[in-house]
Amino acid sequence: MGKQILILPGDGIGPEIMAEAVKVLELANDKFQLGFELSYDDLGGAAIDKYGVPLADETLERARAADAVLLGAVGGPKWDSIDPAIRPERGLLKIRSQLGLFGNLRPALLYPQLADASSLKPEVVAGLDILIVRELTGGIYFGQPRENKVFDNGERMAYDTLPYSESEIRRIAKVGFDMARVRSKKLCSVDKANVLASSQLWRAVVQEVAKDYPDVELSHMYVDNAAMQLVRAPKQFDVIVTDNMFGDILSDEASMLTGSIGMLPSASLDANSKGMYEPCHGSAPDIAGKGIANPLATILSVSMMLRYSFSQTQAADAIERAVSDVLDQGLRTGDIWSEGCQKVDTRTMGDAVVAAL
Amino acid sequence: MGKQILILPGDGIGPEIMAEAVKVLELANDKFQLGFELSYDDLGGAAIDKYGVPLADETLERARAADAVLLGAVGGPKWDSIDPAIRPERGLLKIRSQLGLFGNLRPALLYPQLADASSLKPEVVAGLDILIVRELTGGIYFGQPRENKVFDNGERMAYDTLPYSESEIRRIAKVGFDMARVRSKKLCSVDKANVLASSQLWRAVVQEVAKDYPDVELSHMYVDNAAMQLVRAPKQFDVIVTDNMFGDILSDEASMLTGSIGMLPSASLDANSKGMYEPCHGSAPDIAGKGIANPLATILSVSMMLRYSFSQTQAADAIERAVSDVLDQGLRTGDIWSEGCQKVDTRTMGDAVVAAL
Ligand SMILES: CC(C)[C@H](C(=O)O)[C@@H](O)C(=O)O
Ligand SMILES: CC(C)[C@H](C(=O)O)[C@@H](O)C(=O)O
Repeated sequence: MGKQILILPGDGIGPEIMAEAVKVLELANDKFQLGFELSYDDLGGAAIDKYGVPLADETLERARAADAVLLGAVGGPKWDSIDPAIRPERGLLKIRSQLGLFGNLRPALLYPQLADASSLKPEVVAGLDILIVRELTGGIYFGQPRENKVFDNGERMAYDTLPYSESEIRRIAKVGFDMARVRSKKLCSVDKANVLASSQLWRAVVQEVAKDYPDVELSHMYVDNAAMQLVRAPKQFDVIVTDNMFGDILSDEASMLTGSIGMLPSASLDANSKGMYEPCHGSAPDIAGKGIANPLATILSVSMMLRYSFSQTQAADAIERAVSDVLDQGLRTGDIWSEGCQKVDTRTMGDAVVAAL
Repeated sequence: MGKQILILPGDGIGPEIMAEAVKVLELANDKFQLGFELSYDDLGGAAIDKYGVPLADETLERARAADAVLLGAVGGPKWDSIDPAIRPERGLLKIRSQLGLFGNLRPALLYPQLADASSLKPEVVAGLDILIVRELTGGIYFGQPRENKVFDNGERMAYDTLPYSESEIRRIAKVGFDMARVRSKKLCSVDKANVLASSQLWRAVVQEVAKDYPDVELSHMYVDNAAMQLVRAPKQFDVIVTDNMFGDILSDEASMLTGSIGMLPSASLDANSKGMYEPCHGSAPDIAGKGIANPLATILSVSMMLRYSFSQTQAADAIERAVSDVLDQGLRTGDIWSEGCQKVDTRTMGDAVVAAL
């Protein structure tokens, strides 16, 4: 039996961009004889509409059985006013947690063809290539206890817990060091060790793991300073490793430095490199259904999947080259369009990548 | 008896920049007959050296008795390896908490004379004028329980708690709305209500407070999106109100958008507008003692003090005008220097502001 890929198009622009990514995946499947078998299911709002919950048990079982999951995007105004416990995002958090996808890789890469799109000065971001490694199944996102309560005097209060264990920190630190090792051998660990107990343990464990990677240069930075340095001089960074919440904030900031978040894929991996792959951008409800969304981040997520879950380097490289080719041809969806380029819709962009491949 | 101002020069460049700010304060004191009496003490590393702790009880008593506190900066490598419980930052956190300085105002203002200093494109940041209102005495910075522990199996774990009560949220939300009211009547509340229980209460309470400010337009944004939008289109913001940790991160990011963090003051206020005033930048140990640091953020902190704690609008305006004048004259310390301007040292800059005043 071939490798099983579960496709979750999700909400908003999810189905449109996924349709193009699947074309590319199917072509790569044939061309490189990958033997993939695709199946489909729903997550997020689409799952609420179909199953009444943002992640159905049967979907989770299918995801567990699959060798990799490809996700579009989840969420939208339609589900904004429903019970917080079953909002679309809950499905995303649950699948991350249940599949043990603790290692989130978020590249912030500036495509030379799109250098103008950034709100930063060209000399500050030219050649930008950062990889954020975010811990994805621990910390304050999942910490217990968490509660909303009312005191006897009627005052409400709420709290969350930010826990990290040594083993959780160790395994994500290793991902950071492994990534740094195959890139430029520089790892920056971001924490708030001058204030948080969890960050003090984070820093201590990262330092211990560093002993196994004498070839990688480790530095530490406080999260407030990192948020500042990403704006001031982002090219000082290569690989950044950080916790779930700081990673959420810094990876979004870093991706926006490129000015083209419609181009950025991501991977969420478990201990055996089984993974879920999705674009960094959201479900963009404002343009959903119009056929104008940029499918390239999802197409590049396919490439990441081939690289990280299946070690199909050749096929992964070919997809990345095809994307670069269509940019060279001057094709642009609205989000990355600039004067002198040809504005195309979602399908035309997908077809162009297929043709280039 | 006159109004008492407690001066805490602190560490690193603190004493140098404070010397210039005090010159300006003393001149304003005479010129506008403010009747201020100044006294001095130590905080942070300087206090560790003198008292063995980063905030001595007697210093805290003096700060309580004072009508306002002016602070330089704290911290430095000299105290990096001491017991975390008495590190310089602990003194800063303790004085904030003990004086009840829950309302932290951090302006990110781009001086037209320094437009080039930003790493962002001029059209993205020209005229930038954001005020971040950060909750400063609650949340994960002070939440209990927090612990570092070792399980029976030898595994270490650590956790922090992020609590907010209705009344804590209400009072900082009011500061946000009050500030928005005297600015452009737009308030953006930043949280992570799609994940955190504390953020759900935060959002609910901010919405309740909004009923008392029908003239202010309220919006909500997730912190990851805010970090992104600050890079993409920062001028969409006027006043941002957020919790302690998010405020730490976003205010540093926002201040760096201006490219001249050496220019930015801050205020930390209690319920009666008693406050502590300090520059946004740190103690810059690398240039300490060289006499080249930029004293303008500390001088502008004096102006904020006159405005917020003493309602001396005229004197506050005069200091801001004097700072703008010296920039017009082309005087620049190293951090804000650019081609065609005159590079000056700390003292020359301070003297120029005194002369302009
Ligand atoms: C939708 C939300 C829960 C999610 C997160 O905060 O992790 C998103 O922002 C992301 O970064 O993937
Ligand atoms: C020094 C540190 C504890 C402090 C903070 O995190 O609040 C600083 O970063 C600040 O923003 O004033």
